[in-house]
Amino acid sequence: MNSLKIRFTENEMKNEKTPAEQLVFGTKFTDHMFVADYTEGTGWHDHRIVPYQALTLDPSASILHYGQTVFEGMKAYLSEDGIVRLFRPEQNMKRMNISADRLSMPQIEEELALEALKQLLEIDKEWIPKEQGTSLYIRPFMIATEAHLGVSASKTYTFIIIMSPVGSYYKEGIHPVKILVESEYVRAVAGGTGTAKTAGNYASSLKAQEVADREGYAQVLWLDGLERKYIEEVGSMNVFFKIDGEVVTPALNGSILDGITRKSIIELLKYWGVPITERKVSMEEIREAFLNGKLDEAFGTGTAAVISPIGELRWKGELFYVNNGETGELSQKLYETLTGIQRGVIEDPFGWVVELKK
Amino acid sequence: MNSLKIRFTENEMKNEKTPAEQLVFGTKFTDHMFVADYTEGTGWHDHRIVPYQALTLDPSASILHYGQTVFEGMKAYLSEDGIVRLFRPEQNMKRMNISADRLSMPQIEEELALEALKQLLEIDKEWIPKEQGTSLYIRPFMIATEAHLGVSASKTYTFIIIMSPVGSYYKEGIHPVKILVESEYVRAVAGGTGTAKTAGNYASSLKAQEVADREGYAQVLWLDGLERKYIEEVGSMNVFFKIDGEVVTPALNGSILDGITRKSIIELLKYWGVPITERKVSMEEIREAFLNGKLDEAFGTGTAAVISPIGELRWKGELFYVNNGETGELSQKLYETLTGIQRGVIEDPFGWVVELKK
Repeated sequence: MNSLKIRFTENEMKNEKTPAEQLVFGTKFTDHMFVADYTEGTGWHDHRIVPYQALTLDPSASILHYGQTVFEGMKAYLSEDGIVRLFRPEQNMKRMNISADRLSMPQIEEELALEALKQLLEIDKEWIPKEQGTSLYIRPFMIATEAHLGVSASKTYTFIIIMSPVGSYYKEGIHPVKILVESEYVRAVAGGTGTAKTAGNYASSLKAQEVADREGYAQVLWLDGLERKYIEEVGSMNVFFKIDGEVVTPALNGSILDGITRKSIIELLKYWGVPITERKVSMEEIREAFLNGKLDEAFGTGTAAVISPIGELRWKGELFYVNNGETGELSQKLYETLTGIQRGVIEDPFGWVVELKK
Repeated sequence: MNSLKIRFTENEMKNEKTPAEQLVFGTKFTDHMFVADYTEGTGWHDHRIVPYQALTLDPSASILHYGQTVFEGMKAYLSEDGIVRLFRPEQNMKRMNISADRLSMPQIEEELALEALKQLLEIDKEWIPKEQGTSLYIRPFMIATEAHLGVSASKTYTFIIIMSPVGSYYKEGIHPVKILVESEYVRAVAGGTGTAKTAGNYASSLKAQEVADREGYAQVLWLDGLERKYIEEVGSMNVFFKIDGEVVTPALNGSILDGITRKSIIELLKYWGVPITERKVSMEEIREAFLNGKLDEAFGTGTAAVISPIGELRWKGELFYVNNGETGELSQKLYETLTGIQRGVIEDPFGWVVELKK
């Protein structure tokens, strides 16, 4: 691992920055991007930070037909103290390699990728918005580039990091959303690619989301593909419930993404001494908890929203309200603590935060 | 539908053609390609035949992250009589729209796409190899191009047709392959995207193929994702068995691709009066048929190979041989009849073949 391996070409044409309040998620990108190429036999080469620019791909490039691609999502925060912070970035790089293995793609050099990210952040530091709730969204991804129409693993790949300033997920403060429990479509099944952060899972989810949108729901809740009974994820987030004082979340079963926010919440709850169990959670259990007045709280977790409280669930025509459609106490506390740690305003007892040199 | 809508820019630099015997599947492309763009609100526009060229995509383009892409595979044949023939091309365009719907992508204009393909074939006619067993492989595909990192359907798309001269699938005549029955990985499950020709299904399959390769097997046989008992597909082909004189193939169940070769074989067998049933087929049934000496034939079906006879199946350590590892009589007859119809040397009683004007 040698940071000198990274060549730098400056962007002479600086892009104009958008005021924080006008930022739309994932539409505006910083001046530079990191790129490295992989060739079978040679390995990774040509590590470079270059002006943000279009990619050129042969029309037969493997990614366009056979979908070999993996990605990660993470954020950099700039606080009042002028320090740039990352949240558990090594976990993202590690997970990217787990995803890559499932997709028959090469392993990235985790430490070098992290070093590249730090250099890229240093170069595009001015792009990190400072305002409360804002951040710089970071998207590392790898695509298969071989010009070959054949169902086999590509012999060449490109690894890229792009970054996008994003506004506050909650423009008017954290608030609960309405969720539709999906009965027709399935996100993933054990033996498939559900545990990998790969394009196919997201492509597959759009149709259900379309229906949910139409019916006025923010996201769908995915049930297992086998029995259509057990809860898996909500939208592209992991999901937690507080039932009769106990917090439960679906156990990692081979079709659920091993979320970094999910993992952090479990660790935080244990640290606080709040009972938390990873196990199978059925919709029938949620229904009964609701009917018995024991469905205290429900929330999705992920990098984009951190915590997304659920105020209402619709399942087979029945409506289950959670905490009278208000954000629960625990959801609020988890949100404030996690975002506080991420921004450096709350002490980090776990060593999660990586501070960049000023 | 108006063919005058298609603008033509000639490729001044003609590519060199590869001799038929040196052709490798899907690596060499003709001089031109068809392209059309789609914008939400405007619809399809800018239909054009242009020199085969690289695509430029923003690094945040939807296809690279969220996998909205569908494709088709078809072939054009040039026979002794100088006529170019397509095999049921309207079926491919129709299926592309079924796939597109599942992926929340816009519908293509089927008739215009077919007209565009015919014009493209006329322009690049010299690229269609004549030799026995060769053909021009045609790949229509659509990708999501919006520069936006967000899990939602893209607002812009590009539809492209590229073409690649391909050599004979069977260089030394049709011969049976060894198949490994897959027990760990799953291709698709009902409610997922198994019935759509989309990248994620293929990306997901590579890991199992890697294992099969290593153990000396040509392809994997996929079992259902729910009970891991019932046969779904073999590699990226549909599959048929002849058991005790009856032909059976897995029924379309929501996770199996509705293959055009599969459909044609069913119609051909019915025409011949050979008993053919679409139903659930378990591996246990195949095992028993083998043990009772009733596993007459087995073969995969698809556009690339047409018929791919299976000579051996491995399931949970047991080996089942089919027809002593020889190509069965029915498999051979189906192969000769279908390829004969496709090349215009056997009469087509079904109206499957579309001949291009000379």
